Amino acid sequence: MRFEHRPANALRPLELIVGAAKYAEGSCLVKCGDTHVLCTATVEERIPPFLKNTGKGWVTAEYGMLPRCSPQRIDREAAKGKQSGRTQEIQRLIGRALRAVVDEKLLGERQIRIDCDVIMADGGTRTASITGGYVALHLACQKLVQAGTLKAMPLREQVAAVSCGITEHGALLDLDYSEDSTAHADANFVFTASGQVVEIQASAEGATFSRDAFNNMYVLAEKGIADIVTLQKQVLGL
Amino acid sequence: MRFEHRPANALRPLELIVGAAKYAEGSCLVKCGDTHVLCTATVEERIPPFLKNTGKGWVTAEYGMLPRCSPQRIDREAAKGKQSGRTQEIQRLIGRALRAVVDEKLLGERQIRIDCDVIMADGGTRTASITGGYVALHLACQKLVQAGTLKAMPLREQVAAVSCGITEHGALLDLDYSEDSTAHADANFVFTASGQVVEIQASAEGATFSRDAFNNMYVLAEKGIADIVTLQKQVLGL
Amino acid sequence: MRFEHRPANALRPLELIVGAAKYAEGSCLVKCGDTHVLCTATVEERIPPFLKNTGKGWVTAEYGMLPRCSPQRIDREAAKGKQSGRTQEIQRLIGRALRAVVDEKLLGERQIRIDCDVIMADGGTRTASITGGYVALHLACQKLVQAGTLKAMPLREQVAAVSCGITEHGALLDLDYSEDSTAHADANFVFTASGQVVEIQASAEGATFSRDAFNNMYVLAEKGIADIVTLQKQVLGL
Amino acid sequence: MRFEHRPANALRPLELIVGAAKYAEGSCLVKCGDTHVLCTATVEERIPPFLKNTGKGWVTAEYGMLPRCSPQRIDREAAKGKQSGRTQEIQRLIGRALRAVVDEKLLGERQIRIDCDVIMADGGTRTASITGGYVALHLACQKLVQAGTLKAMPLREQVAAVSCGITEHGALLDLDYSEDSTAHADANFVFTASGQVVEIQASAEGATFSRDAFNNMYVLAEKGIADIVTLQKQVLGL
Amino acid sequence: MRFEHRPANALRPLELIVGAAKYAEGSCLVKCGDTHVLCTATVEERIPPFLKNTGKGWVTAEYGMLPRCSPQRIDREAAKGKQSGRTQEIQRLIGRALRAVVDEKLLGERQIRIDCDVIMADGGTRTASITGGYVALHLACQKLVQAGTLKAMPLREQVAAVSCGITEHGALLDLDYSEDSTAHADANFVFTASGQVVEIQASAEGATFSRDAFNNMYVLAEKGIADIVTLQKQVLGL
Amino acid sequence: MRFEHRPANALRPLELIVGAAKYAEGSCLVKCGDTHVLCTATVEERIPPFLKNTGKGWVTAEYGMLPRCSPQRIDREAAKGKQSGRTQEIQRLIGRALRAVVDEKLLGERQIRIDCDVIMADGGTRTASITGGYVALHLACQKLVQAGTLKAMPLREQVAAVSCGITEHGALLDLDYSEDSTAHADANFVFTASGQVVEIQASAEGATFSRDAFNNMYVLAEKGIADIVTLQKQVLGL
Repeated sequence: MRFEHRPANALRPLELIVGAAKYAEGSCLVKCGDTHVLCTATVEERIPPFLKNTGKGWVTAEYGMLPRCSPQRIDREAAKGKQSGRTQEIQRLIGRALRAVVDEKLLGERQIRIDCDVIMADGGTRTASITGGYVALHLACQKLVQAGTLKAMPLREQVAAVSCGITEHGALLDLDYSEDSTAHADANFVFTASGQVVEIQASAEGATFSRDAFNNMYVLAEKGIADIVTLQKQVLGL
Repeated sequence: MRFEHRPANALRPLELIVGAAKYAEGSCLVKCGDTHVLCTATVEERIPPFLKNTGKGWVTAEYGMLPRCSPQRIDREAAKGKQSGRTQEIQRLIGRALRAVVDEKLLGERQIRIDCDVIMADGGTRTASITGGYVALHLACQKLVQAGTLKAMPLREQVAAVSCGITEHGALLDLDYSEDSTAHADANFVFTASGQVVEIQASAEGATFSRDAFNNMYVLAEKGIADIVTLQKQVLGL
Repeated sequence: MRFEHRPANALRPLELIVGAAKYAEGSCLVKCGDTHVLCTATVEERIPPFLKNTGKGWVTAEYGMLPRCSPQRIDREAAKGKQSGRTQEIQRLIGRALRAVVDEKLLGERQIRIDCDVIMADGGTRTASITGGYVALHLACQKLVQAGTLKAMPLREQVAAVSCGITEHGALLDLDYSEDSTAHADANFVFTASGQVVEIQASAEGATFSRDAFNNMYVLAEKGIADIVTLQKQVLGL
Repeated sequence: MRFEHRPANALRPLELIVGAAKYAEGSCLVKCGDTHVLCTATVEERIPPFLKNTGKGWVTAEYGMLPRCSPQRIDREAAKGKQSGRTQEIQRLIGRALRAVVDEKLLGERQIRIDCDVIMADGGTRTASITGGYVALHLACQKLVQAGTLKAMPLREQVAAVSCGITEHGALLDLDYSEDSTAHADANFVFTASGQVVEIQASAEGATFSRDAFNNMYVLAEKGIADIVTLQKQVLGL
Repeated sequence: MRFEHRPANALRPLELIVGAAKYAEGSCLVKCGDTHVLCTATVEERIPPFLKNTGKGWVTAEYGMLPRCSPQRIDREAAKGKQSGRTQEIQRLIGRALRAVVDEKLLGERQIRIDCDVIMADGGTRTASITGGYVALHLACQKLVQAGTLKAMPLREQVAAVSCGITEHGALLDLDYSEDSTAHADANFVFTASGQVVEIQASAEGATFSRDAFNNMYVLAEKGIADIVTLQKQVLGL
Repeated sequence: MRFEHRPANALRPLELIVGAAKYAEGSCLVKCGDTHVLCTATVEERIPPFLKNTGKGWVTAEYGMLPRCSPQRIDREAAKGKQSGRTQEIQRLIGRALRAVVDEKLLGERQIRIDCDVIMADGGTRTASITGGYVALHLACQKLVQAGTLKAMPLREQVAAVSCGITEHGALLDLDYSEDSTAHADANFVFTASGQVVEIQASAEGATFSRDAFNNMYVLAEKGIADIVTLQKQVLGL
C-alpha cells in the first residue's frame, strides 16, 4: 500500500509555483510531495565558444542540493571542492532534456542557464528539475519576447519528466524515496507534450527485469507526464 | 529617505520561521526584508580531532548562496571547485559567533553543524545567518535535551547580529543592498542578549571614518539587536 | 549505405582478445571496428566503507581515453586535474552494468576494479567497455575460484552492451562515429545473456522520436547483444 | 607581568628595515619582537577586469607563512593545494586596509601587489603585515613618481595597525603569542596617521566582553598606532 | 645472471612499430622487453604564449601510465586530480630531450605534442618514451614536409635514450624492473646519433658510487644508444 | 669575464648561517652570492606508511620560493593551488640527496622534514638547498643525540651540491643567473665529503655537448664541493 492510498499510476501532489525567485528572469518552485526544487532561469548574452558565429543559442543546467535537504546531511560540494559524478550526470541530463525542445536559431546567440537547487529531497529530484526547469525556461523566453529581444518563442513544445519503478507490488509511478530505495528497477522518462521521447534511462537495481516490466513503466510514464504537462499549461496560462 | 520611510534606527520587517526544513534537527528561515536565509542545524556524534577526549563539543557553520539569489547570477562555488575567500570568512564568523554562547562541556563530545543557505540576498546575509543560526541551534539543543541526550541546555544566552553603515544621511541600521553599496563604512555587530560583545567588524569603504561615527553605529546596533533578541525569544517560546 | 555494405542489424567486426594485459588478474582487448578498448580486472582485498562487515563484495569501474585515440587530440584528464562529467557518467554506467550480474555474497568482502582504457575511439566506447569489462571480470573470478579463494563463480550470468541509433536510413545497430554524429537518436542497451534488461539509455539528439522508433532500436539491440554473448562464451570457453 | 616588564600600553621592540628584498620595487622587513614579516611591493601594468577603462588603479595583497615560522611546523599551503580560510581572510584585510589610503585615480590603471611572508611568527602577523605593507607600498609609489610614471604620490596618508587584547590583567597592547593564546578577547585596529578608522575587528575568545572593555582596547590602539606611524615616518624620511 | 643470459651490454629485444595509432600525425609503439609505450605526435597550429611572434615552434610531451600496466595497480592520476611529481619530472625530461634536436626556426610557429602512454611497464619507461617519441616526432615532421607546410625537416639529428645501473654484478645496460629494484645506482642517458650529450641523470639508490662506476655506465650507454639509433634509422627508412 | 673577476673554478662568496630560524630543530640560512635560501629541519615522530614497523626513518624535503625573490614576481603556488613540476622535481632531488647519507636504521621510526625557502634567487637555488639542508639536518640530528633520543649520529658523511655550466668561455663553476641563462649546458652535481657520487643531472640547453665538456664540469664540481664541505665542517664545528 502506498502512502495515503496513492494508486500505482498517480503522481504525488504536485505544485508549480511560478515567480518563486524574485530576481531571476524566470523561476518555478516545484513541490512534488516532499521533494521541493527551486528552478531559476538566467539569460546571458554570451554563448559557449563552439557556437560563436553560428547564430545559435544554448540552454544549459546546473544542479545542487542544500546540505540538509534530506534526513542525512549531504556534504556541501563547494566545501569538498568538486561536484560528484551523480551531480554532473543529473545536470547534463537536465540540459539535454531542455535543449531537445529549444529552437536554437530562434533563440539566437545567447545562453539560458537553468539552476535547479533541491531544498527538500524525497525522491525524483532530477525529474522534478526538468519539469520545473521547463517552466522557468518558458517564463524567461516569454520575457525576451515581450521585451522584443526575440521575435517568437524559441520553444517547440513543452517537456516534462517523471520516474517509475518496479517494486514487489509491480510498476509504480513517481516513487518517493522510501519506495525508490526498495525498488529493483528505476527509470526516468522525459517526454514532450505530444508524447515524443526525449530521454529514457532505466536501470536494474539488485535484480534485472524483463521487457514487459519495462513496458509497464513506459505506460505509467505516459500517463504521468500527460498530467504534468496539463499542470504546466495551467500555470503558464497556455 | 529610506525605502518605505524606514527610520534610521529601524530594522527591516523581520520574520523567523522555525521548522522550515523538515528533516533538520533544528531550522529557521530568516526573512529580513528581501534577504532570505535558510538555517539548519545538524547534530553529529563526532568532533574535530583536536577535541578528542576533552569532553567538549563543537559548533561549526557553513555558508552558501544559491546562484540566482541576487540580481546578477553568482557562479556556483561547487562548479568552480572552491569556496571564495568571502564565503570562508563568513562561515568562520558565523561559527565563532555561535560558539561564543555555547557551553562546550555541557554539549559533550558532539558537533552541531549550522548550514546557512541564502535563498535571496538583499544585504546583511551574514548577520541574518547568525540570527537564524542561533534559532536553529537552540531548537537542535532543545531536541537533545528532550531526548535525554543532554541534561541541560548548553547555551549560555542568545546571540544575534545586525549590520550598520555610515551614509551621506548619517548612521543607519540594517542596510539593504542599495544602501550598503553607497555607504562609506560598513559594520557588523554580534552581541548577546545581555549586550555583551561577541564580535565587531567595521570597515571603511572609500572613506575612512571617525571614532564618533563608529560610536553612532554602535548605539544603533544595540537597539537593533535588542529588537531581534525579543523576536528570537518569541519564536522560541522563551 | 553503411561502410563496407554492413546491414542495419550487423555488428562491426568484433574481436575479444583475452590476456592482452600481462600483469592483470583478467584482461580483454575489445576491438569493435576501429574502437579498441583495453579492459583489465584488478582484485583488491578491501572494500568501500559502506560494505564493511556485510560479507558483501563490490565491483567498480574506471574509464579513460588516451589523448590521441581520436582524430582530434583530447586533453589528458590527469593534466586538467579532473575527470569530465562524461567520463564519470560512463564509469558509473560500466560499474552498475557489471554489478547487476554479480553475486556480492559469493564474491565476499573484496573488490574487483575494472579499468577500461580507450586506445582508439570510433564510437561505442562505453558499450565496448561493458562487453570487454565482463570478460576481464569473468577471468579474474575464474582465477579466484582456481586459487580456492572463492568456492563458486560469483557471476549470475553474462552481460554485454551495444549501441543503436535512428538515422535518416532508419534504426541501425552498433553505430560508428560518423553514423553516430549524424543520428538524431542514440541509445545504449545493456542486457544479460538471457535477455533481461540491465540498463537502457536513449536520448534524442536534435530531434525527438516516437515509441515505435524506440522499439525498432530495442529489437536491433536484442539481436546484437545475442551475437556478442555468443562471442564472449567462445573466448571464455563456456 | 609582561615579558621584560613591558607596560600594558607599550609596543614590542619594533624595527622597519627598508630595502630588505633586493629585487622588489619596494620592501620592508618588519621585526616586531619575534614576529618577522617580509613585505614586498610589485608594480604591475595591468589591473583586474572590473577596472578596465575606469582610469583607476588597484592595490592587492597576498599573505603566507614559511612552514617553520612557528614552534609547530605549519603545512605548506602550496603542498596542500589551497590557501586556508585564515590566510584568505588576512590577505583580504591587508588589501582593504591599504586601499583605504590609496587615491586610485592618481595611481592610474596599474596594480601594486603587496606580498607579506611571515619568516617568524610570535603573534600579530596580520597587523605587522599592514604596517610593513604600507612602507613597501610607499617606497614603490615613490619610485613611480621619481621615474615620472606618476605625477604625484597616490597615497592620501599613512596607515598602520596593531592588535590589543583583554587578559586577566586587563587590556594590553600588541600581544605576543603567549599573551594572545590566553586572552579572552582579541582585537585588531587599523588607523590612519590622523587617527581615522580604517578597520576594527574585535572577537570574543572564550568569554564575551563589555563595551567598556572594548573602549579600553581602543585607547591603547590609538597610542600604539601613533608610535608606529612615527617610526614609519622616520624610515621613510617624511 | 641476467634473464635469458643477456650480456651486460645488451639491450632487451627492441621493436619500434610505426603507425600504431591510426589517427595521430606520427606514432610509434615501443616494445622494449615487457615495457610497452605508445608514443603519438599531434601537430597543433598554436604555440605557448612566450613564443608568440618569435617565428619559433615548440615540442612538448605528456606521459601517463595505464592503471594496470604493472603488477600492482597504480591509481589513475585523472581520478586523483593531479599528476604526481614523478610524472611531471618524466614529461619535462622527454620534452627537453626532444627539443634538443629540434630546429625551432624551421618548425615555425606551431607545436608538436608528444603523448607517451605506458601500456606495460617493466623498467625504463622514460627512456623508451624518448626513443619512441623521437620516431613519432620524425614521422609527424615528414608529414608536414610532404604536405608542403614545412620546407625542410626541422630535426637536426636523431635522439635516443637508455638506462644503466650498477648492481652487485657490476654495471648493466637497459635494466628491467627486477634488476632496477636491486641496483644501487640508476642512470638515464640521452644522446644524439652523433654521441653528443643531451641529458644525463644519475642517482645513488641506497649506496653512493665512484666516478669509475659512473664511467662504466657511460660506456654501456654509448653502445646501447648506438644500437637504438640504428633501429630508429631502419624503421624510418633513413 | 665573470662578475668581480671570479675565476672559472671559484665559488661565489658563501655563508652558512646556522640557527637562522629560532623555532626549528635545526636551521641554516645559505647565502651564495645573491642566492639566499632558508633551510629548516623539523623532527616528526611519525613516518610514511610504507615504513611502518620497519624500524627505519625517513628524510624528506619541501621547496618554495617567496613571490618576490627574483626580478620578475613569481606567482604564489599556494594561490595557484598547486606546486609546479619544477618545484616537485627540486624537492624530490633534495630529499633523495639527503637520504643518500642517512642511516635509516640509526634514525629509527621518525621523519625529519627539511624545508628550503628561497628568499632571494640568483641561480643555483637547488644546490644551495642541498648544501644548507645538510647543515640543518645535521643540527637536528645532533639535538636528537644530545637529548638521548638517538644513540649515534645517523649520518654517514656530509653531502653538498654545486652547479656547473658550459658557456662560450668554457666550463664554469657555480653559475649565477645571468651566466646560467646564456650557458648552453647546465649540470648539478651532488657529492659526499669523500667524493662519492650521489646525483648528477646534466642537460643541454640550446646546444648538445661532448663527453669532454661534461668531464670539464665534473672536475670543477669536485673542486667546488670540496670547498663547500670544508665550510660545512667549520660551521658545524667538525
